[in-house]
Amino acid sequence: MRYEGDKVKGIDIAYIGGGSRGWARNLMQDLALEERLSGNVRLYDIDYQAACDNATIGNSLPQYPETKSRWKYEASETIEKALGGSDFVLISMLPGTFDEMESDVHLPEEYGIYQSVGDTTGPGGLVRSLRTIPMFIEFAEAIKQYCPKAWVINYTNPMSVCVRTLYKIFPGVKAFGCCHEVFKSQEQLGIAYTEKTGAKLTRQDVKVNVMGINHFTWIDKAYYNGIDLIPYYREFVDKYYEEGYGEWRNSVFDTAHRVKFDLFKRYGIIAAAGDRHLAEFCPPWYLKDPETAEKWKFHLTPISWRKEDLKNKLKASAEFLSGKEKMVLKPSGEETIRQIKAILGLGDFVTNVNLPNIGQLDGLPMEAVVETNAVFSSDSVVPVIAGRFSPEVNSLVLRIIINHETILKAGIDRDINLAFRAFVNDPLVTIEIDEARELFKRMLNNTKKYLPGWQL
Amino acid sequence: MRYEGDKVKGIDIAYIGGGSRGWARNLMQDLALEERLSGNVRLYDIDYQAACDNATIGNSLPQYPETKSRWKYEASETIEKALGGSDFVLISMLPGTFDEMESDVHLPEEYGIYQSVGDTTGPGGLVRSLRTIPMFIEFAEAIKQYCPKAWVINYTNPMSVCVRTLYKIFPGVKAFGCCHEVFKSQEQLGIAYTEKTGAKLTRQDVKVNVMGINHFTWIDKAYYNGIDLIPYYREFVDKYYEEGYGEWRNSVFDTAHRVKFDLFKRYGIIAAAGDRHLAEFCPPWYLKDPETAEKWKFHLTPISWRKEDLKNKLKASAEFLSGKEKMVLKPSGEETIRQIKAILGLGDFVTNVNLPNIGQLDGLPMEAVVETNAVFSSDSVVPVIAGRFSPEVNSLVLRIIINHETILKAGIDRDINLAFRAFVNDPLVTIEIDEARELFKRMLNNTKKYLPGWQL
Amino acid sequence: MRYEGDKVKGIDIAYIGGGSRGWARNLMQDLALEERLSGNVRLYDIDYQAACDNATIGNSLPQYPETKSRWKYEASETIEKALGGSDFVLISMLPGTFDEMESDVHLPEEYGIYQSVGDTTGPGGLVRSLRTIPMFIEFAEAIKQYCPKAWVINYTNPMSVCVRTLYKIFPGVKAFGCCHEVFKSQEQLGIAYTEKTGAKLTRQDVKVNVMGINHFTWIDKAYYNGIDLIPYYREFVDKYYEEGYGEWRNSVFDTAHRVKFDLFKRYGIIAAAGDRHLAEFCPPWYLKDPETAEKWKFHLTPISWRKEDLKNKLKASAEFLSGKEKMVLKPSGEETIRQIKAILGLGDFVTNVNLPNIGQLDGLPMEAVVETNAVFSSDSVVPVIAGRFSPEVNSLVLRIIINHETILKAGIDRDINLAFRAFVNDPLVTIEIDEARELFKRMLNNTKKYLPGWQL
Amino acid sequence: MRYEGDKVKGIDIAYIGGGSRGWARNLMQDLALEERLSGNVRLYDIDYQAACDNATIGNSLPQYPETKSRWKYEASETIEKALGGSDFVLISMLPGTFDEMESDVHLPEEYGIYQSVGDTTGPGGLVRSLRTIPMFIEFAEAIKQYCPKAWVINYTNPMSVCVRTLYKIFPGVKAFGCCHEVFKSQEQLGIAYTEKTGAKLTRQDVKVNVMGINHFTWIDKAYYNGIDLIPYYREFVDKYYEEGYGEWRNSVFDTAHRVKFDLFKRYGIIAAAGDRHLAEFCPPWYLKDPETAEKWKFHLTPISWRKEDLKNKLKASAEFLSGKEKMVLKPSGEETIRQIKAILGLGDFVTNVNLPNIGQLDGLPMEAVVETNAVFSSDSVVPVIAGRFSPEVNSLVLRIIINHETILKAGIDRDINLAFRAFVNDPLVTIEIDEARELFKRMLNNTKKYLPGWQL
Repeated sequence: MRYEGDKVKGIDIAYIGGGSRGWARNLMQDLALEERLSGNVRLYDIDYQAACDNATIGNSLPQYPETKSRWKYEASETIEKALGGSDFVLISMLPGTFDEMESDVHLPEEYGIYQSVGDTTGPGGLVRSLRTIPMFIEFAEAIKQYCPKAWVINYTNPMSVCVRTLYKIFPGVKAFGCCHEVFKSQEQLGIAYTEKTGAKLTRQDVKVNVMGINHFTWIDKAYYNGIDLIPYYREFVDKYYEEGYGEWRNSVFDTAHRVKFDLFKRYGIIAAAGDRHLAEFCPPWYLKDPETAEKWKFHLTPISWRKEDLKNKLKASAEFLSGKEKMVLKPSGEETIRQIKAILGLGDFVTNVNLPNIGQLDGLPMEAVVETNAVFSSDSVVPVIAGRFSPEVNSLVLRIIINHETILKAGIDRDINLAFRAFVNDPLVTIEIDEARELFKRMLNNTKKYLPGWQL
Repeated sequence: MRYEGDKVKGIDIAYIGGGSRGWARNLMQDLALEERLSGNVRLYDIDYQAACDNATIGNSLPQYPETKSRWKYEASETIEKALGGSDFVLISMLPGTFDEMESDVHLPEEYGIYQSVGDTTGPGGLVRSLRTIPMFIEFAEAIKQYCPKAWVINYTNPMSVCVRTLYKIFPGVKAFGCCHEVFKSQEQLGIAYTEKTGAKLTRQDVKVNVMGINHFTWIDKAYYNGIDLIPYYREFVDKYYEEGYGEWRNSVFDTAHRVKFDLFKRYGIIAAAGDRHLAEFCPPWYLKDPETAEKWKFHLTPISWRKEDLKNKLKASAEFLSGKEKMVLKPSGEETIRQIKAILGLGDFVTNVNLPNIGQLDGLPMEAVVETNAVFSSDSVVPVIAGRFSPEVNSLVLRIIINHETILKAGIDRDINLAFRAFVNDPLVTIEIDEARELFKRMLNNTKKYLPGWQL
Repeated sequence: MRYEGDKVKGIDIAYIGGGSRGWARNLMQDLALEERLSGNVRLYDIDYQAACDNATIGNSLPQYPETKSRWKYEASETIEKALGGSDFVLISMLPGTFDEMESDVHLPEEYGIYQSVGDTTGPGGLVRSLRTIPMFIEFAEAIKQYCPKAWVINYTNPMSVCVRTLYKIFPGVKAFGCCHEVFKSQEQLGIAYTEKTGAKLTRQDVKVNVMGINHFTWIDKAYYNGIDLIPYYREFVDKYYEEGYGEWRNSVFDTAHRVKFDLFKRYGIIAAAGDRHLAEFCPPWYLKDPETAEKWKFHLTPISWRKEDLKNKLKASAEFLSGKEKMVLKPSGEETIRQIKAILGLGDFVTNVNLPNIGQLDGLPMEAVVETNAVFSSDSVVPVIAGRFSPEVNSLVLRIIINHETILKAGIDRDINLAFRAFVNDPLVTIEIDEARELFKRMLNNTKKYLPGWQL
Repeated sequence: MRYEGDKVKGIDIAYIGGGSRGWARNLMQDLALEERLSGNVRLYDIDYQAACDNATIGNSLPQYPETKSRWKYEASETIEKALGGSDFVLISMLPGTFDEMESDVHLPEEYGIYQSVGDTTGPGGLVRSLRTIPMFIEFAEAIKQYCPKAWVINYTNPMSVCVRTLYKIFPGVKAFGCCHEVFKSQEQLGIAYTEKTGAKLTRQDVKVNVMGINHFTWIDKAYYNGIDLIPYYREFVDKYYEEGYGEWRNSVFDTAHRVKFDLFKRYGIIAAAGDRHLAEFCPPWYLKDPETAEKWKFHLTPISWRKEDLKNKLKASAEFLSGKEKMVLKPSGEETIRQIKAILGLGDFVTNVNLPNIGQLDGLPMEAVVETNAVFSSDSVVPVIAGRFSPEVNSLVLRIIINHETILKAGIDRDINLAFRAFVNDPLVTIEIDEARELFKRMLNNTKKYLPGWQL
């Protein structure tokens, strides 16, 4: 890596999960469109062919007229090869397959437990965590060995557990986790303002204070210039509380934001994630049964949908590869490039990321991975003080964090009793303890090939 | 105050100490040169004539071709008039006169205690604090009453005690304290880099992590782009440790930086303030006697010098007023305007300021006023996590903070015993307790007209 | 008060709630049986006649041959008269009447919320707290004024809120709260040991470490001599888990301890209170409906029973007064006398009491009233470090403490919204927010004459 | 070990440093005089012959008529043999010899640094710590291996560092440290009371709250029955401040308590250790030079005196062994037996001991070894909450604790730079850094045979 004029050349990026059809594509586009950076990207994936395909696509980008910089892509057969000498490591992957996720999400339904996503919390999120922890232990150890000074950016869920595992295993790691979930709440704040004033705001116009944990993130302050947007949002919630805001029948991801509005009414603070996520962190107020979810106007995303969607993405990939289809290069809206530039000293900025708590969230345990604003600057990502929740919200968030810590310990020690302790402590698990034990065993059994060394 | 296009008009600024010859002049120039802001400045000073003179000078600025914005200046006869409806309040003043400061600095010399500045810590700083606290109690109460939502920027010394008093009396105050002392260390880091590489850096090119308390501030990380500057600084210290760096005989403010270098050698962290300040916070390593100071190559600034300097400034003022002398409008190098703009939503940035500790400096008491980086953004100044000192440096800093808290309490309760407890706990006060008591009484007596309601 | 030989004479005790038929009687007996103490007891009660009756009974005790010391009883018409010059203040009273308690306990049943006691937590406990807070504010202010150095012993429920209110209003108060609930768990530990070994233990033989909050107290360590009793208890639980231990149909207070056993199985720590109390602090695992309580083998104590019981007690009182019935003086089993003696310097000892957290329970908020062991010694009651809960139990307890703090603030500020925030945050309140609001309003309405100054 | 009636038989005690002439003798007497305990004592010492001699003496005790219990003594050739299966481990030893101690105490005098004891803090205490740490690492590892459940009682200085090392190396250790230094302050409080009232108090009559670190311990509350003794002490200090109390010329250990009185005047709290110790923890107020110590009326204990004293003790030992001299069995005044009994469940009591801070001393770091009261009970020694120092005293104590932590880390990592960091941070080391470095090197060199693996 070297500085030439206002450019940085020869940057080495390793991409774990580099065979992915979504995030990898976004990254390649964003890199191509950034003129101040260039270098090499090594793609590593347990599906090596998928990584090769993405390398082929990546290396084809210079043919597009919009491309502004040179990046060389290659697939790495081992994680060592991918990591060695890297300046940055990106991690974006699916832990396991949609078959395991099907068990995570749908098996609990037999016991009356419903989940709208199942990748972060709830019984599904916990079992996914157990599956993910051994992988991230491996990543952390490899990073420590092959590129201890690299900056590591994680996009994988369950976010908090992934980032926490990296720090637990390699305390010196320079890792943080990114998620665009909060962006939509900034947009909605902008809409609330537009509805009253007509003025159009971009997401970046809306300055927010972010606090919480990934997918259960909150905003207590929001400004446009010097103007406080919270009163606008309050009016917006009052107006749309009963009916919900927006069309939610179009896709399994769409919601009418009624959960978010209800949480605002309960606690007076903006819950800054999608309703499907938010519902899963609460006692079963919104997820008692499918009818309750329907009433609150959000979907329980079925895994069958995800499987179908994957087929479509694979088809699209094949068409790019064969040259049948052309790509249209445009910015993804993700902040990765801007973050990389800031870390390289090419312009400070502030955004929200997931980092171990070193005081930015008062009232929550130190070391727990929390999501707040942070200053990105030369070789540093430093959290900004986000303040403190009301006791009630704090208690909701704390319960989840406690579970994260327990599950992490269980994952590292392969301790099934400890894992079960977290399982029954999940807010969605309100069934009898014997039933819970049965469900837990069945779920673990379905994911056992990702639990090496466990006594099941 | 109103937003028009990319400008903010009708901003109301109150300036306490508005008759000053230094800071007020700087502010007027900087305001004149900023095209996006305009409004009114009300100058309040116990020397009303001085405020009127400054108003006259301020109102003459539109005649200069460099002036880009309209500001109306007026002197206010009462603090109420100055504060009422203000958006910003600036406080820059001398607590008492140079006569009191003469006692602060020189009386302890009779007892073998030497001070190089005497305005922040040491016996002089403590007595100055006692003098200042009643004034800042009055300011805090007036701000609470007349402009509770205004942002308050303090430049007055003793900085920590001033800001702490504001928050103690009016916990809802939106106040912070600014000091340019750290800037010089950024410059010196740039010089260290230039010496090795030839590349010229501006102060802004040098990104630093700031931690500590005002005038006893430290830098543990410094970067230019992605380049770590600490190794360059270490080499610089090694090179200049014995001889010192730079010419120090020219002015009473100049030093050869040997104290700073010695502290770096002791603790491995950059002490980011002038040597004259740093020496006063330590046990009498550098201030045992005038010869020791001489050996470490810095001056004990005599008050006679300050009195002479004031005369020159008054003469210069008179010449501007009479029109005999023209001003040359140029940026002062202070960050006030940029801070105001960020608070108004016109561009976020990060800089170091003095704020109550809400977690940014781990290991030091909450609520103590500390100096760290903070993000300036719409209606918010939020500290960035600065980390934690080594135990040894922490203990040096903590001792001072403990004294600040004691002296504040003594100042509020008018408790002479408590004040004395802080006095004998100062690192420079190593004399016998009976002598200390005598000195303390004499010093208080010399400042008694600024201690209303005290039983001396 | 004066020391004579090994005796203390002229002790002044004020008894708030001195018309009570239960606690007051116990105290009078215990005082009569203690030869080292003597003095005066002033009984204060809103039912003045009841206090007079108790005074008459108290003054008749010297006629009994077992009586070892002289105590003079009188009823005080005002709280001032009772408190003035007191060395000790005892508070034992019913906040309101059983009519209000009927609403506390039974109205929630219309909404599907069942409570087994309803005096500490749950909707009933919260509304009772609101009723109690103004009374304890009055007591705290009176104590501050009339006997600030007196030791204050509270027996009133809700214990934590009562003691917390005293400290909140008068931080210098020397108050603690006593409850014998833990004693029964010591006895059960003794039984577990006896079942295996045949050796008979007294309660005092069983040394325990106590931690938690009143009625939701836990024991993590238990010893007889140097012998660890936990393994004996574990075996005992395993043996009786399914069937329960003991006859529970005899009285509404009896239980089969299955809740306690289930909590031990879940968390590996002994829940040291009656099942009827324990069940109310958890999510509705044991109180989903009356059938569930039946299954866990404990009773929902109906208020009709309490009303009947009161009638019997009144009758018994009348018979003592008329001389128709004689008392049999015997020790009550309460520790009050021993505590008073220790405070007077007549013998240190350790027992569990309710005190503000000053570090004895790590992981729970400072100032919250917690129950742990404490050393009773000359003019001091100092908590012993009790340690730290597992995260899961901590989280259960913390939620209750948070609610206590919210309800206290609501009670002091007469803030109905804040009170409702605590209400919906109660683990037993899992109904929809609109229903909750309706229930809350009805409950408040039924208790409104004890909520002076509230806007209902 | 087994319980028979009210006795415990077959107790196994290991004594590290079992060849000592002082403590070992005391222990043997106290054991012989206690009828409820019996068992075996294994004496381990690097001077094996000394251990054998003590075993011989110990086994001769049954011949004395006062002896009430049977104890079998044997010398162990290895630490493994001594520890294996022990119920209690006592550690009382001299780290190194008086030759090393001579360097610790007298070499700094060449640089103008005077120490009155030199075994706990100051340059001597720090170097002694370095010498001691490897020994205690070895003990901790052996205890972990051979008797992990044993209770470990340390009497060795530097107390805090010894106990801290045990916990650092083996966190599960059940260790505490005992010192009788505080007892004398209890006695002095009794004397102050006697002077005014004529009433005679025993040490045990005086209840005190103890806080601080060993040899720099403080008492903020003291009672006889319910009577506050602090006002009596204040009067006592006023009376004797100038002249001192008691004859101090008789022995090198005697003092006139003027340092203690001066600290009481400065801070309003009783410094509960001998003046010779107290003086060493402060800046050189009392130890500037021998004349200053003389003025404050205490002695700088020369090592020549200790060497002479040792000779006398050896002679006495020889006479006991040869049977020429008979022992007179009487209680030593130490609390060891009472502590052992309490731990065995034979009677709870409260006394002051050295334990890791788990909250008993608010404001000082967790894990630091502090001295406060603790409850001794069945298999448990649990600290009582001692409160919090004034900021000034806290700052004095904290500085020492910081140094302990640094020196411990230096000792474990064999890091000479870190050790030097602690050295120059000692309050007595006010000399120039280059001189300090020279002194430090010379002192380390004199003790190098006890620093295995160090690069000097």
